[in-house]
Amino acid sequence: SKSYTVTLLPGDGIGPEVISVARNALQLIASIEGIEFKFKEMPMGGAALDLTGVPLPEETLSAAKDSDAVLLGAIGGYKWDNNEKHLKPETGLLQLREGLKVFANLRPATVLPQLVDASTLKREVAEGVDLMVVRELTGGIYFGKPRGFGTNENGQEIGFNTEVYATYEIDRIARVAFETARKRRGKLCSVDKANVLEASMLWRKRVMEIASEYPDVELSHMYVDNAAMQLVRNPKQFDTIVTNNIFGDILSDEASMITGSIGMLPSASLGESGPGLFEPIHGSAPDIAGQDKANPLATLLSAAMLLKYGLGEEKAAQRIEAAVLNTLDRGYRTGDIYSAGLKLVGCKEMGEEVLKSI
Amino acid sequence: SKSYTVTLLPGDGIGPEVISVARNALQLIASIEGIEFKFKEMPMGGAALDLTGVPLPEETLSAAKDSDAVLLGAIGGYKWDNNEKHLKPETGLLQLREGLKVFANLRPATVLPQLVDASTLKREVAEGVDLMVVRELTGGIYFGKPRGFGTNENGQEIGFNTEVYATYEIDRIARVAFETARKRRGKLCSVDKANVLEASMLWRKRVMEIASEYPDVELSHMYVDNAAMQLVRNPKQFDTIVTNNIFGDILSDEASMITGSIGMLPSASLGESGPGLFEPIHGSAPDIAGQDKANPLATLLSAAMLLKYGLGEEKAAQRIEAAVLNTLDRGYRTGDIYSAGLKLVGCKEMGEEVLKSI
Ligand SMILES: CC(C)[C@H](C(=O)O)[C@@H](O)C(=O)O
Ligand SMILES: CC(C)[C@H](C(=O)O)[C@@H](O)C(=O)O
Repeated sequence: SKSYTVTLLPGDGIGPEVISVARNALQLIASIEGIEFKFKEMPMGGAALDLTGVPLPEETLSAAKDSDAVLLGAIGGYKWDNNEKHLKPETGLLQLREGLKVFANLRPATVLPQLVDASTLKREVAEGVDLMVVRELTGGIYFGKPRGFGTNENGQEIGFNTEVYATYEIDRIARVAFETARKRRGKLCSVDKANVLEASMLWRKRVMEIASEYPDVELSHMYVDNAAMQLVRNPKQFDTIVTNNIFGDILSDEASMITGSIGMLPSASLGESGPGLFEPIHGSAPDIAGQDKANPLATLLSAAMLLKYGLGEEKAAQRIEAAVLNTLDRGYRTGDIYSAGLKLVGCKEMGEEVLKSI
Repeated sequence: SKSYTVTLLPGDGIGPEVISVARNALQLIASIEGIEFKFKEMPMGGAALDLTGVPLPEETLSAAKDSDAVLLGAIGGYKWDNNEKHLKPETGLLQLREGLKVFANLRPATVLPQLVDASTLKREVAEGVDLMVVRELTGGIYFGKPRGFGTNENGQEIGFNTEVYATYEIDRIARVAFETARKRRGKLCSVDKANVLEASMLWRKRVMEIASEYPDVELSHMYVDNAAMQLVRNPKQFDTIVTNNIFGDILSDEASMITGSIGMLPSASLGESGPGLFEPIHGSAPDIAGQDKANPLATLLSAAMLLKYGLGEEKAAQRIEAAVLNTLDRGYRTGDIYSAGLKLVGCKEMGEEVLKSI
C-alpha cells in the first residue's frame, strides 16, 4: 500500500485545533483508500519561537523538505507582534516558503450555494463566484534585495525594499497560471501596475510571451487598482488571476472576503518539484484560540488540496470535499458562517460531523 | 474682489466634457460670491502627447505652478497604452504630482443616502459609509530609485523598483492624516505591511511617534491584506485611513467602488504650500468619451474640494456640494448611477441641472 510522510505544522492560535481535525480526517481517508500516512508534527511560528528561539527551526524545515507534503495551521499572535523582524512568526513562514521553493500559491475563492448569504455582497453579485488567484510566492518585494534601513543624503533615516522579478520567475508562475486556467474556464487575467512600475512592465511582457504557448487560454491584463475595484463590482468576471507576491497578498484576501466565508478557504503552494505547502488562508485568530470555536473546514479543504495537488490522490481529495459539502447541507455551522435556523457547533463537533460524512 | 487663477487640465477621454461642466459651475459661483476666476486651459496627458510629443509640457507645469489651484479631468486612453514609459499619459500625471509637490492625496469614499443601492454591498453594510483615505502621493515605489531594467547574475533580464520612505515623508503625511482625522470622527487607521517590509516598519514607527502630537486621535494599525478584507467586510469601521502610495492606490480604488458610485468621488492632492491638484478619481473612460454620457458630479465635487482646501472658500464649496445633493434629490441621474423611476440625463444636462440648483 502507498505510504506518504506528511509534516504537520500546527503553529499558533487556532492552528493546533484545526490541524487536529484535519489529521483525523486524513487518517480516516487513509484507512478507506488503503493508503498510509506517517505524520510528523513540528513546531513553527510563535510556538517554535517560545520553544527554540527561532520561528522556523532547522529540524522543522528539514522535516518539511523530507516529506511528501506539508500541512500548516496558522502562525502569529499578539505576543510576538513587536518582535524584531528575524524573530517574527511571519519570518518563519517566509523562510518555509523560500526553503521549500514553493513559488506558486493557488488561492481559490468560491461562493458555495450553502453560504451565499455569508457574503457582504448582494446575493446576485456573490452567487456563483468561482475564481482562483495564482500568486507568485517566493519573489518580488517580499524577498528582493537590497532591503533594510539606512540614511538618505540629508542624514534622515530611510526604510527600503526592492520589488524585483527576473524572467524565469515570471515565466514559471505564468505557466502555472495558464495551466490552471486551462483546467478551469480558460480565462486568465494578469494583474500588474505596468503603467508605473518597471517590474510590472517586464511582468506583462513575459506573460504575453508565455501566452503563445497557450492559444486556448484567453488572456487579459488589468491594473491592480482596477482589479481591487472589479473584485467588488463584479467578481464573476474573473476565472483565474495571476499576479505578483504583494498584489496577490492583497487581492487574494479581498477575494476571499468577498465570498464571506474566509473560514472556508484553503490554499496550496507548489514548487517545480518537492513537497507542496498547504494551509487555510485565515490567520491564527488569537482572540478565539483554545475556545473550540474555530472553523476547521478551510484546513480540511487544504488537506483535500494536499491530497489532490500534493499527492495526486484525487479520489481521496474528492471524499473530503464531498464530506464538507454534505456537512454543510446537513446544517452544521461554526460561528463564523452561522445563520439563524442552522446548527451551531464548535471546531471539534464540526470535525466529527465531517468524519461521519466521510 | 478676490481673484484666483485656476489652471484647467481637461486631459483625455471624458475629461474635457466634465471639466467644461465644472468651469461653468465655478463661473456661476464666482458671480454669486463676488469672486473672480481666471481660467487657463492647458494640454496634458494623451492630448499633450498628440500636440507636443510629451505628456506634461513645460508650459503646462509652469502654468499649474503659477496658479492658485489646478483642476484636472482625466488622462489616458487605449491609443497611448503601449507607449514607452516616458511617453505614457500616466507619466505626465506623476510628473505633475511631483512638480507640484502634492504629497498628500485625500480621497473621500462616502455612500450618499440617495445612492445606497448603487453599491454592490448589501444595504446594511453600505449605508452610512463615510471614510477618507489619505494616500502618500510623491514617494514610495512610484518614485523610488534605483528602478529600471537590468540583468541578474545568471544573465536573465530583470525589472525592478524601490519602495523607500524617509522619516520626513512619513511624518508630514502622518500629520496631514491626524489633522484630517481630528476634523472628522477622530479615528485614524494606518495601513502597512510591517510584518514583512522594512519600509513599512519605519512607516509604523514614525506614525506612532507623530501620534504623540495628537492624543485626541485614536490610532490603530492594520496590515494591507487585512485592510483590503475589512473594507469589504465592514467599511463602516473606518474613519480616516493613512497609507503609502501604492497601497493607497489600491485601497482607495477599492473603497470608492464600495460606495458603488465612482462617478461621484472627488480627490484633493495637497503640498506644504503652493497650488493643490484636484481631480475626480474616475478615469478617462475612453469607451464613452464624446458621447455626452459621463457623470460630471465627481469633477464638480472636486471643484468643491478646490474651493475648500485649495482656496479656503468654504461657502462657495458648500454651494456646489448642496447643489449636487439637490440635483440628486430632484431625481437626475447619469447612466452610471441610474436606477428605474429616475430621470436619466447626459453629462451636459446634469451640469445644467446642477447650475439651476446653485
Ligand atoms: C503572514 C504574512 C507574512 C503572509 C503574507 O503576507 O504572505 C500572509 O498574509 C499570507 O498571505 O499568507
Ligand atoms: C494613472 C495612475 C498613474 C494613477 C496612480 O496609480 O496613481 C491612478 O491610478 C490614480 O490613482 O490616480
